[in-house]
Amino acid sequence: MLNFEYCSPTSYIFGKGRERETGSYIKPYTNKNKVLIVYDTERITECGLLKTVTDSLEEEKISWCKLSGVVPNPRFSLVKHGIDLVKQERADFVLGIGGGSVLDTAKAIGAGAAYDGDAWDLCTGTYAERSLPVGAILTLAATGSEGSMFSVISDDQTGEKLGIAGEAIRPKFAVLNPELTYSLPAFQTACGACDMMSHIMENYFTNSKGTFMIDRLIEGLLKTVIEYTPIALREPDNYEARAALMWASSLANNGSMGLGRISDTGIHAAAQAIGGKFDKTHGATIALVIPPIMKKLYKKNLGRYVQYASKVWGIEPNLDHPEETALKGILKTQTFFKEIGLPSKMSDLGIKNPAEYVDELTESVDIDMWQATPGYTVGITKEELREVFKETAE
Amino acid sequence: MLNFEYCSPTSYIFGKGRERETGSYIKPYTNKNKVLIVYDTERITECGLLKTVTDSLEEEKISWCKLSGVVPNPRFSLVKHGIDLVKQERADFVLGIGGGSVLDTAKAIGAGAAYDGDAWDLCTGTYAERSLPVGAILTLAATGSEGSMFSVISDDQTGEKLGIAGEAIRPKFAVLNPELTYSLPAFQTACGACDMMSHIMENYFTNSKGTFMIDRLIEGLLKTVIEYTPIALREPDNYEARAALMWASSLANNGSMGLGRISDTGIHAAAQAIGGKFDKTHGATIALVIPPIMKKLYKKNLGRYVQYASKVWGIEPNLDHPEETALKGILKTQTFFKEIGLPSKMSDLGIKNPAEYVDELTESVDIDMWQATPGYTVGITKEELREVFKETAE
Repeated sequence: MLNFEYCSPTSYIFGKGRERETGSYIKPYTNKNKVLIVYDTERITECGLLKTVTDSLEEEKISWCKLSGVVPNPRFSLVKHGIDLVKQERADFVLGIGGGSVLDTAKAIGAGAAYDGDAWDLCTGTYAERSLPVGAILTLAATGSEGSMFSVISDDQTGEKLGIAGEAIRPKFAVLNPELTYSLPAFQTACGACDMMSHIMENYFTNSKGTFMIDRLIEGLLKTVIEYTPIALREPDNYEARAALMWASSLANNGSMGLGRISDTGIHAAAQAIGGKFDKTHGATIALVIPPIMKKLYKKNLGRYVQYASKVWGIEPNLDHPEETALKGILKTQTFFKEIGLPSKMSDLGIKNPAEYVDELTESVDIDMWQATPGYTVGITKEELREVFKETAE
Repeated sequence: MLNFEYCSPTSYIFGKGRERETGSYIKPYTNKNKVLIVYDTERITECGLLKTVTDSLEEEKISWCKLSGVVPNPRFSLVKHGIDLVKQERADFVLGIGGGSVLDTAKAIGAGAAYDGDAWDLCTGTYAERSLPVGAILTLAATGSEGSMFSVISDDQTGEKLGIAGEAIRPKFAVLNPELTYSLPAFQTACGACDMMSHIMENYFTNSKGTFMIDRLIEGLLKTVIEYTPIALREPDNYEARAALMWASSLANNGSMGLGRISDTGIHAAAQAIGGKFDKTHGATIALVIPPIMKKLYKKNLGRYVQYASKVWGIEPNLDHPEETALKGILKTQTFFKEIGLPSKMSDLGIKNPAEYVDELTESVDIDMWQATPGYTVGITKEELREVFKETAE
């Protein structure tokens, strides 16, 4: 087990109706009693969630201003706008109501408003040392942004995904009410499940030694997602399924599953190349690349792929032919994605003539950076990466 | 899954040699640059650990005073003494170096020094709203006190164990260097393992529904303890084994494994009756009571005991005779405790004529409080509890 430092200071407030007390969660963090509320579309207004939250703010005598219009793969231009709004309105707390894109935007605004220079610096390598306090009300179990120290923002011009990192941007609290995810479309539910699986897999398929304990925890989380995603799709208002997926999404990306090992973000690097180029849903692009990446890499980390097949999917290991066991595990993964309605080819996402983009996608991935952290993607070559994209383009 | 609120604000600083920078971890929390160091015996001095830590304090220009003499089942009188010392020396940070007893003492001193009234109130039901900041350097993987919101202190006169509770007493940081546990006697290592198993079991054997995910995580932790305890006993300086046990002990008692379910402290209530009366090592008394409690209660929560046997011990479930499967799991537990050198009878701990104390022990447990939280001890009767003590007295 490698040395690590770990702290998860976010207060998770989990359960039915918890958003009704949002004002009281914010109160300790605001001096000016002025909050910027960030959300995506009218869905939050129509379902009454925004009103529930603002009623609760009123009870605490907190006023607010609003910023809507967050889109998937959220844009830096909106972050800039939010920073201006915070300053103009003299708000000192940012509340995101939505999924990962909204929370990433809220966190970027919080960090940008507390930064002396141009917020663009934070997207391009400057560590976020400070942030206005940020809170989260989650409406989609997926990215784990509600408890993470990261925010992913896209460049408006190029579509390139940029990351802001800093302990300071972890939300102070995250309201997790599984009922708020009942109305999600099936596709979004499936994409969310795939995203959380990818976060855990990026920790699981490591070269590090001495990982017994967290391997077992990760297998438990993967089994949870595999158990409950089909249930949530069949019965969108199944509380237990929504609750399990919601808590799994937070644990998958709050750092606890990557402790003491080298992880990487190889799956995300490949998926984001597609997502950035064609502006597609994050979780769907993740589903495209996981099986082909696994097929390219399992022989380089065979024992671990056998373990995955056996412990996660219950496949009896064939000790004479471990490759066979590993491949069965990969096939199970691929079949699972298909069964929950995720795409396996770029064309499933409406991308025309995908084969034409294979070279461009391959070149757009910073493979040197990827190889620098030898986790999941143990020694992937550029040629292998090209074949990954090729498989999704067939 | 039941509603919950959860935050784990302790910074875990894990790995080799991390105690050498203790001064820098304390610095942000001390204005007076004066620390009270709490430890147990000369062991900490002799092995050079105390010097390593004070050297690091000196580097940060932090001075210190010391309080030694913490014993297992730590006493309130020493806590009182520590509170006086903090006030007299004008210290504003408490650092515990040791195992659970030391850390519980340090936390009680921190809470007592910040409390306006008599610290005894905190031991008898008053929630600890405030505390001086406390830090922990762990030398024994067992209680999880390094990240928990509890402190267990014994009444000097009666031996009764009293609890202090409060979010404020969670340590600000916990230095977890597995190497510091290499020199532990085998018996202490085994007792620590048993204690952490009991913390997780008190969450696992619940009546609550919708517990799939955390059940899987708990099973992973139990398997970790079962895997690595024998290795640590055979090879006391096996880093991976010590590391796994150390991190397992923290996760077992930082609250994360009890979320969304009703847990209880039934195992502890029974064990502490013995520990308090005869002043015996906590983990050893835990080992005495777990198998007999399981035997009394498995039929009342059969499905869960079958799951335990199957998922933790790999026993093929006999669907026609689930009781048989459950009993096999209990037997495995009992055998495991024996194999790692833990006692199964009070006489193994040198208690003379134990049968004479069965009634007294039974009466000393507050069974009403125990039954009020219907978790592990689903509806235990006083007669069943008497039989538990009787089995340990045979």
